[in-house]
Amino acid sequence: MSTAQMITSSPQSDAALSGPLSEAIDQLLACAASCAICAEACLHEDDPRSQVDCISSNSDCADVCMATARVLGRASAGLSAMARLQVEACIEACRTCGDECDRHASHMEHCAICRDACRECERLCQALLSS
Amino acid sequence: MSTAQMITSSPQSDAALSGPLSEAIDQLLACAASCAICAEACLHEDDPRSQVDCISSNSDCADVCMATARVLGRASAGLSAMARLQVEACIEACRTCGDECDRHASHMEHCAICRDACRECERLCQALLSS
Amino acid sequence: MSTAQMITSSPQSDAALSGPLSEAIDQLLACAASCAICAEACLHEDDPRSQVDCISSNSDCADVCMATARVLGRASAGLSAMARLQVEACIEACRTCGDECDRHASHMEHCAICRDACRECERLCQALLSS
Amino acid sequence: MSTAQMITSSPQSDAALSGPLSEAIDQLLACAASCAICAEACLHEDDPRSQVDCISSNSDCADVCMATARVLGRASAGLSAMARLQVEACIEACRTCGDECDRHASHMEHCAICRDACRECERLCQALLSS
Repeated sequence: MSTAQMITSSPQSDAALSGPLSEAIDQLLACAASCAICAEACLHEDDPRSQVDCISSNSDCADVCMATARVLGRASAGLSAMARLQVEACIEACRTCGDECDRHASHMEHCAICRDACRECERLCQALLSS
Repeated sequence: MSTAQMITSSPQSDAALSGPLSEAIDQLLACAASCAICAEACLHEDDPRSQVDCISSNSDCADVCMATARVLGRASAGLSAMARLQVEACIEACRTCGDECDRHASHMEHCAICRDACRECERLCQALLSS
Repeated sequence: MSTAQMITSSPQSDAALSGPLSEAIDQLLACAASCAICAEACLHEDDPRSQVDCISSNSDCADVCMATARVLGRASAGLSAMARLQVEACIEACRTCGDECDRHASHMEHCAICRDACRECERLCQALLSS
Repeated sequence: MSTAQMITSSPQSDAALSGPLSEAIDQLLACAASCAICAEACLHEDDPRSQVDCISSNSDCADVCMATARVLGRASAGLSAMARLQVEACIEACRTCGDECDRHASHMEHCAICRDACRECERLCQALLSS
């Protein structure tokens, strides 16, 4: 809610974009938090070796989601070509991490929650590009 | 909610810490988003020169809140000396930015919202250090 | 130098990739620093209003370069599809910021230096994608 | 060199601070890169379980160094109370990570290089606070 208010109170704000934009920013940050915590949780599982790919894709996804949220925080007037490319890279990061977390979701709750956060983030980034 | 679930599903999670920790992480990210958007909104006001200090403190606060959220995402088992110092730096960043935003809050809605986000973040960081 | 040593000492390191990869990482961080300092310098010029677009593209470029450096720090074994998309978004960020800085380069030294940092970063990211 | 030029070309630049400030920023970014690569290298060692603490302290140090570099990029006119607290948190992050890397330095080259990067970063941050 606060992000939506912030976006609409910006001097340049494009009214049609503000909903999809603020939803994407909020989920990018929620997804970044999930991925960062999932990386640390995976690392402390009994067999971290089985989680190596998950930790790397979690870390990539956290970094890319945070940067994308920052770029989108400057996009209230519209998405630049660069912002669109950044969102596309982020969609791929969320897809990769969501797929990797899904492999462990049946026996690790943190991977199940993180997979869902990645899927939702991918969906809202796609919705933003289509808006 | 998702952050709280992530924290409690971590193998090392300290039950007493998980509430204050996940509340702090969520607000750190919300505050970082508010500050990043406030910086951009201030920059596009009619007289950006009057907003120079606000833009700088917004940018500092966004950077410090994001880093603090990442550090706390690895602290489910307890706060290290380093994590405590990082939270203290973050409390100062939120206080400085909240005070600066408060100067413009009567005539700029984005500064009013951002001030409230900084105050709440400062409060939850203090609560985390006391927990 | 230290980045090149770090990359080649990683267990998975691909020898052919380590040169272009470490050069790109070093320049991404140098470019991120230039862009962050240029944004702050522009903000404190006599007429910040003329620098608004430069400050925004500087901030975008700093964020995207830092995230790309982090992703590439995990790519010593090879570039994933996601890493390639992230580098492409970064090339666009460097091009946009370099072009914007170039407009002010004749009368602001920080913009001239930052333009050169962006151009070099764009070149090394392209070289990495071609390697 | 480019960071030093950027700092001295900023409108507000404090001449006495520009040397220690630009040296600290450059080393903060070099240290962040070392730590990020060391985390990934540790993760791919034969026994990642023995590297769990090193990966966490590497990740903390990378996050804190990057945020500190960003804050210092806005400090060419002088260090605020907040910037000083952030540098102090960073000194602790570098000390912790340097100590942890030192435990593995005899048998892992990436930890030896990363330890040296952390030590140098700690030293330059201390020098900045004393300048």
